[in-house]
Amino acid sequence: MKTIDKLLEGIDTIVGKESLIEKLEKNIPLKVKLGIDPTRPDLTFGHMVVFNKLRQFQDLGHETILLIGDHTATVGDPSGRSATRPILTTDEVEHNAKTYLDQAFKIIDSKRTTIRRNSEWFRKMSLDDMLIIARKMTVARMLERDDFAKRYKEEEPISIVEFLYPLMQGYDSVILQADVELGGTDQFFNLLVGRALQKDYGQSEQIVITMPLLIGLDGKRKMSKSYDNYISFNHSSRDMFGRIMSIPDEVMWPYFKLLLEYTDEAIEPLKSQHPMDVKKNLARALVARFFGREMAWQEQEYFETVFSNKELPKDMPEFSMEGMGVTSLTLGEALDRTQLFESKNEIRRLIEQGAIKVNGQCETNPKLILQKNQCPYMIQSGKRIFFKLT
Amino acid sequence: MKTIDKLLEGIDTIVGKESLIEKLEKNIPLKVKLGIDPTRPDLTFGHMVVFNKLRQFQDLGHETILLIGDHTATVGDPSGRSATRPILTTDEVEHNAKTYLDQAFKIIDSKRTTIRRNSEWFRKMSLDDMLIIARKMTVARMLERDDFAKRYKEEEPISIVEFLYPLMQGYDSVILQADVELGGTDQFFNLLVGRALQKDYGQSEQIVITMPLLIGLDGKRKMSKSYDNYISFNHSSRDMFGRIMSIPDEVMWPYFKLLLEYTDEAIEPLKSQHPMDVKKNLARALVARFFGREMAWQEQEYFETVFSNKELPKDMPEFSMEGMGVTSLTLGEALDRTQLFESKNEIRRLIEQGAIKVNGQCETNPKLILQKNQCPYMIQSGKRIFFKLT
Repeated sequence: MKTIDKLLEGIDTIVGKESLIEKLEKNIPLKVKLGIDPTRPDLTFGHMVVFNKLRQFQDLGHETILLIGDHTATVGDPSGRSATRPILTTDEVEHNAKTYLDQAFKIIDSKRTTIRRNSEWFRKMSLDDMLIIARKMTVARMLERDDFAKRYKEEEPISIVEFLYPLMQGYDSVILQADVELGGTDQFFNLLVGRALQKDYGQSEQIVITMPLLIGLDGKRKMSKSYDNYISFNHSSRDMFGRIMSIPDEVMWPYFKLLLEYTDEAIEPLKSQHPMDVKKNLARALVARFFGREMAWQEQEYFETVFSNKELPKDMPEFSMEGMGVTSLTLGEALDRTQLFESKNEIRRLIEQGAIKVNGQCETNPKLILQKNQCPYMIQSGKRIFFKLT
Repeated sequence: MKTIDKLLEGIDTIVGKESLIEKLEKNIPLKVKLGIDPTRPDLTFGHMVVFNKLRQFQDLGHETILLIGDHTATVGDPSGRSATRPILTTDEVEHNAKTYLDQAFKIIDSKRTTIRRNSEWFRKMSLDDMLIIARKMTVARMLERDDFAKRYKEEEPISIVEFLYPLMQGYDSVILQADVELGGTDQFFNLLVGRALQKDYGQSEQIVITMPLLIGLDGKRKMSKSYDNYISFNHSSRDMFGRIMSIPDEVMWPYFKLLLEYTDEAIEPLKSQHPMDVKKNLARALVARFFGREMAWQEQEYFETVFSNKELPKDMPEFSMEGMGVTSLTLGEALDRTQLFESKNEIRRLIEQGAIKVNGQCETNPKLILQKNQCPYMIQSGKRIFFKLT
């Protein structure tokens, strides 16, 4: 496969394709920028999509710059969301940045990554410097951004500070003199602002490559912590395996493509295999990437014992925490809520007797906390009662 | 006349009228702010309207603050105009500010005026400080400003920096803790931003008073250097007198009201007098304000000699520089363009012989420059040829 074909594999949009081809053919080393705002304490598989692309550039020997938006994060980037989002403290941001890096280096090569933080230039930037940048972009152009256009039309407030964010993000590219910038599709507009500013500052315009947004576990919406349909880099190997196994079958293909970097040709033959087997391969490959092959096999075995166990009936009743309006509850409460048991006394006795299994393991503590973000739990009482807590 | 009635005389809009009445009745000393951006080297009679109102507050013993927008001016306030307006240098701004003050003190009392410059706080302001301010205002609110709304609708570019100006101007009020802010009608929106920011910073909101825009010499558009229909504080006594005499009769009444602070009751009886006499009174009173009563009488005499001279025919031919497509030309060229003379030789001879009068004065220099912004010129050759150059 040609270099350029590999780099174009899986992408959503590229601006400056001719320029990229030309530079690759001439073996010009490129500065490839990926910016992340450390506004949350962990990364999701959604981030893996762009990290994979960044690693491809690393593998070709290009300079890759991971730009930590630590300054923008302290002011709170409300992009696409309510303007009233709380401001993070410097400590929170620093903590997030640290864990981001630990996580990012599970995908990209730390030794070949240049880390920059935009507090380097924004912390000491004056109002006047900002005014110079702000002259270079128009209101109309900013309101072309999809989410701004939508919110403006729907009369949802957009704070003026939100108009300064794309400018700040674009100015990062000026400072870094980026040749290529990577991002999710939702960053397309902001990445183009980088091009515009670079041009204005007399630099050549960065090539913009956006990657598709990864679909979440629900198979409906983009993967996001806000929708609770995500897999985190920080999930345990068991959770990671289980969560991957929970995706709808048709969602496997973008996961193979975007997370495992399979080509369409490599995916095609998988479609004739049994979906459960294919999904186990997917889960194993991804877990292996974070925890090694041995651990991945162990999780598969565990999964098969608990979830593929012939003992488990096909149609188990399901009880959802969402339906109960809680995000966590104790094992005792969970059993009580199902109304499958005669009394609280019976529940206590069953637990004490070791008759209750959670995910195939005996649990004798009625106060064991079950958490929504660890769902689903398979719960079993003796050989008679089975249910699923989601 | 009650104090409050006098203060409300001639104004366009007031926000916080009840509050103003209450504070005046309680004899609370007020901080009254008037901001001017020293973007031009001189003030026009348009500015006199707000200076008059400021002086009224001075006369009542309130603290009046003349806020020189020296910092905003160095960045170039494109308010209501093209975003591409050139940036002034610090030296230019400083020069303008100096002359502004000299001129302003012809109307207001320098000893009772506190002068502040917004470079005091903006020069050292950081990006972060600005971001905090920028969070406090929405894009939609900004686009409600008439000129922004119009330009956005007509797809004329509005630079992002223009959205920061009203915020900066409003922040001036926060710093100064202004109780009252004065401005022209076109500043109404910006003055309200000041109220909004003060509220956000936990201060009581300033009372906003806007004054009507003075109509220009053409009787059609607002007085503005851009429309070349203005009278400057820096015009000579002769020019000032002549320019006032050139306004259409119906424009006299707002001039009496806004420049000489006549009440409607005082104006009413003037309407039955001969317009030419009334206009001379207007011109004399205004010139006297800048140059003293004696000088004003001298200019009236000069005007009467040249322009009211019985020698001058009622219907003189007019030649306009605009029609010729020039903004200045020499006396010789002007005579030639009229085609009232036989040859260039004849023109040269007439000038040398002292037969040509410009505004009643003999002119023997054919290279004398006649400028559009000094028009009209009354030009006379002997007793036979008269024309007006406009």
